Amino acid sequence: MKIAVAQLNYEVGNIQQNTAKIIEGISKAKAEGADLVVFSEMAVSGCPLGDLLLLNQFVEDCRQAIKEIAAACEDIACIVGAPFVDKSAGGKRPFNSAFLLKDGVVASRVDKKNVSDCFGGSEYFESATVGPQVIEFREQGILLTIGEDLYDADLAVAEAPSLGSSPALMINIAARSFDHNTMQTRVEEMKGWCITSGLPLIFVNQVGAQTEYIFPGGSLALGKKGDNAMQLDRFIEDMAFIDLSGGDFSETGTNHQPSKIELIHDALVLGIKDYFNKSGFKKAILGLSGGIDSAVVCALAAKALGAGNVMAVLMPSQYSTDHSVNDAMGLVRNLGCLHETIAIKEVADAYEHMLSGVFKGLPFDVTEENVQARCRATLLMAMSNKFGYILLNTSNKSECAVGYGTLYGDMAGALAVLGDVYKTEVYELARFTNRDGEIIPVNSIVKPPSAELRPGQKDSDSLPEYDILDKVLFEVMENFRDPSELKSQGFDEELVDKIMAMLRRAEFKRYQSPPILKVSSRAFGTGWHMPVVSKYL
Amino acid sequence: MKIAVAQLNYEVGNIQQNTAKIIEGISKAKAEGADLVVFSEMAVSGCPLGDLLLLNQFVEDCRQAIKEIAAACEDIACIVGAPFVDKSAGGKRPFNSAFLLKDGVVASRVDKKNVSDCFGGSEYFESATVGPQVIEFREQGILLTIGEDLYDADLAVAEAPSLGSSPALMINIAARSFDHNTMQTRVEEMKGWCITSGLPLIFVNQVGAQTEYIFPGGSLALGKKGDNAMQLDRFIEDMAFIDLSGGDFSETGTNHQPSKIELIHDALVLGIKDYFNKSGFKKAILGLSGGIDSAVVCALAAKALGAGNVMAVLMPSQYSTDHSVNDAMGLVRNLGCLHETIAIKEVADAYEHMLSGVFKGLPFDVTEENVQARCRATLLMAMSNKFGYILLNTSNKSECAVGYGTLYGDMAGALAVLGDVYKTEVYELARFTNRDGEIIPVNSIVKPPSAELRPGQKDSDSLPEYDILDKVLFEVMENFRDPSELKSQGFDEELVDKIMAMLRRAEFKRYQSPPILKVSSRAFGTGWHMPVVSKYL
Repeated sequence: MKIAVAQLNYEVGNIQQNTAKIIEGISKAKAEGADLVVFSEMAVSGCPLGDLLLLNQFVEDCRQAIKEIAAACEDIACIVGAPFVDKSAGGKRPFNSAFLLKDGVVASRVDKKNVSDCFGGSEYFESATVGPQVIEFREQGILLTIGEDLYDADLAVAEAPSLGSSPALMINIAARSFDHNTMQTRVEEMKGWCITSGLPLIFVNQVGAQTEYIFPGGSLALGKKGDNAMQLDRFIEDMAFIDLSGGDFSETGTNHQPSKIELIHDALVLGIKDYFNKSGFKKAILGLSGGIDSAVVCALAAKALGAGNVMAVLMPSQYSTDHSVNDAMGLVRNLGCLHETIAIKEVADAYEHMLSGVFKGLPFDVTEENVQARCRATLLMAMSNKFGYILLNTSNKSECAVGYGTLYGDMAGALAVLGDVYKTEVYELARFTNRDGEIIPVNSIVKPPSAELRPGQKDSDSLPEYDILDKVLFEVMENFRDPSELKSQGFDEELVDKIMAMLRRAEFKRYQSPPILKVSSRAFGTGWHMPVVSKYL
Repeated sequence: MKIAVAQLNYEVGNIQQNTAKIIEGISKAKAEGADLVVFSEMAVSGCPLGDLLLLNQFVEDCRQAIKEIAAACEDIACIVGAPFVDKSAGGKRPFNSAFLLKDGVVASRVDKKNVSDCFGGSEYFESATVGPQVIEFREQGILLTIGEDLYDADLAVAEAPSLGSSPALMINIAARSFDHNTMQTRVEEMKGWCITSGLPLIFVNQVGAQTEYIFPGGSLALGKKGDNAMQLDRFIEDMAFIDLSGGDFSETGTNHQPSKIELIHDALVLGIKDYFNKSGFKKAILGLSGGIDSAVVCALAAKALGAGNVMAVLMPSQYSTDHSVNDAMGLVRNLGCLHETIAIKEVADAYEHMLSGVFKGLPFDVTEENVQARCRATLLMAMSNKFGYILLNTSNKSECAVGYGTLYGDMAGALAVLGDVYKTEVYELARFTNRDGEIIPVNSIVKPPSAELRPGQKDSDSLPEYDILDKVLFEVMENFRDPSELKSQGFDEELVDKIMAMLRRAEFKRYQSPPILKVSSRAFGTGWHMPVVSKYL
């Protein structure tokens, strides 16, 4: 049996285009002589779908698409995922379903049981009443599961022989989004599961970014002993073929194993690219300060969209240093992106003058710092409005955490590229970007970080050093540690309290943050839901 | 048996203060000779809690608080709600629990089964394995339920007699947030349930606002026939006493039944008041345009915070009409609130001049309109930063829906007061505000709405008439209607398509909207979760 693994990039809600893409994949697999082609979970609809799942017409359109795809399955079969309302069962919410389509019709359907790992969980999805099942294809049993249901498959494996349908293969279709923390662990889990069950496994994941969520692909085939038989590249569309004729897949050796930073880099590039592609825009704009964050975003955007589609705007104030302007221009030259320079003095002075009556006698404080940041956002948004550029936000995760940023100023943007990347990781990304030669001027990397909103300002005036700040934040966010646990682990008590208080006070700012590209297991926006007003922490 | 109903206003995460408030309530009830005092669901913790529920220390602190409250229960018993992890059952996520505390200890505990109506649902809460139960108090059976579990109580009522514990009373503790659509229906449902079960009912709800959610109170006692025996006022803290000695509650007649607009008005006032109280601020700022939306927000804020704590800023441009400035000043005089006038010409000119090179030869368009809105936001935020005012957002639900607003401009603010109020309802609120005499100048109510961002501009240049727009939006949002259904109901096809396209295109703006006070069954922010980038609709 020759099986095609189709790792494709779908659009949320674009049932028509996704269906066309799936049917094209079926043709291609058929031309290559495949017996079966496997698409991912929610391939027909894309995901996450949110409240689209509450629209009857949407789910009905998915049902029609499955019919259309089935009609394309002559002399080849396919497995494909879609939401499905079982009207005969009186269901209201859809199941998250996998269909085996052959000879023009639905031959089998399996529904997902563990819907808590679906986007929105049981709020949107009906949970299957039975666990994973063995379906029949060409007189072979296939244990077909969706997402996390793979880990409930032991029951099906144990019970299957008594049902006369002992499986010869596991197929798991998924829509698992990227996070660098668990990317490798998940593969190890799957290997372990092959060994436990004594079955080979095909895992087909979505690829492509949907606003915050980046689906990495990384579809693979594993032999009975968990040995690597095939791995599709991450972050790109691909189709590969594998043969089960001998009852197992043969080992092919391991692919290139990328580092954590390479994974994050490639995820962010895809995140930017797909946000623009899928929302129908081509050109990005950002403010380039000469600092590390905007430099890294500029380089990522140039990689994703082409340097000719990236407009970097230098907006120096009286507090900007010469080296900042030089570093920013150095990056522009290295990348070859578009640029403009607009000094903000005139408009900052106008604000100062207009407010001089109301503010009479009051000293310069964070107000005037914020005005500068908001002048810059207004200029960038004006260029965005006039020319159709999309504003990229350059705030990093450490700043988002402690509220070191100006709402409607440097926190503005349509997409926060580094919002899930700690400051210390931003430096790693910069060094990764320079791996084959200087793109980001070294001075941007080595100088002490500063917002340059008042003379001689440094981030370390207001914040703990980033290496310790990032460690505390990582423990609190990704490891779900209580402050009390951190203190007993030896973190400085006063520092932990200070960071927790900053985290809490910044909730109101983060509430209005742009969507953040998620690259960790817990990103702001998608994975940190603290009350805006609360007294705890 | 004399029972006290304690309808109190808790703070999210402020376990210490909530506990003190509960213990004070116990003392007060004891002094009045009550046998039992009933507090609401999640009284100890406040709600919604979000990711606070993932912190072990937080749930442990709730457990300690329950012990402390139990210790205060001598010669009186209490029923109170809190999250609770049952370690003996190996549970990880907390139950949403109700405790009967007496003689210094926990006498009974009931856990909630239908956790889908809790905030966050099964993502945060363990679901009880058994349904509603009858607990014993003073040799009487009480059918104790939490929230929606009341509607599963039939089983307990049916089974109870065979268990020898036939209930004499139902007590339902709740944390039901306000929406005008179902406020009255819910009372009718409870009445129906009394008749069905033949039992009297005490319903104790939270009161007070927690950012977006406004808990209305409205706690009540109903007799066996569903007759009204007691209803606590809505939107305020209160404690009342009722006697069950005769085995039933006696009818007392109905309270004042407020209109929909009065309910919305009172909910919004509480929403503003508690946002400020609970975040530790006193003073609000807003831009006053002379239009209806900012006038209504200004009046609501003055009611909630006192006119002396409200700063209205008039920021006319060259496109502002004289009547707008006059109408705004009329309102300021009527309310007696603080005010400043800052014309934005100087700073708008500075932007124009700074961008003249980049924009050379290009005509005036939405860019320049947005710059004006962002000048105003920057001025308001500067005053907010300098003086500690909190910026109130004045966008209404109709505008939010169709994206008729400027991100980082008039969409800025810490709290969106009217974000869940359709434009047509804003007019009703204005007339309600003027019920005893003119507060909002009549001209603000009767003139055609305009953003005044270019000469002679009217909302109706860009938008459908509000009466028809609001009808379509209501059907789509509150009634979950598909566009195709609306068309078959007789709504103009082109208009429906236009509105749906506007709704979809505005997702990216709404993503960055301030928290919106929820007053309907489906508000943006808390109850409309569409993908930011999608091709459907």
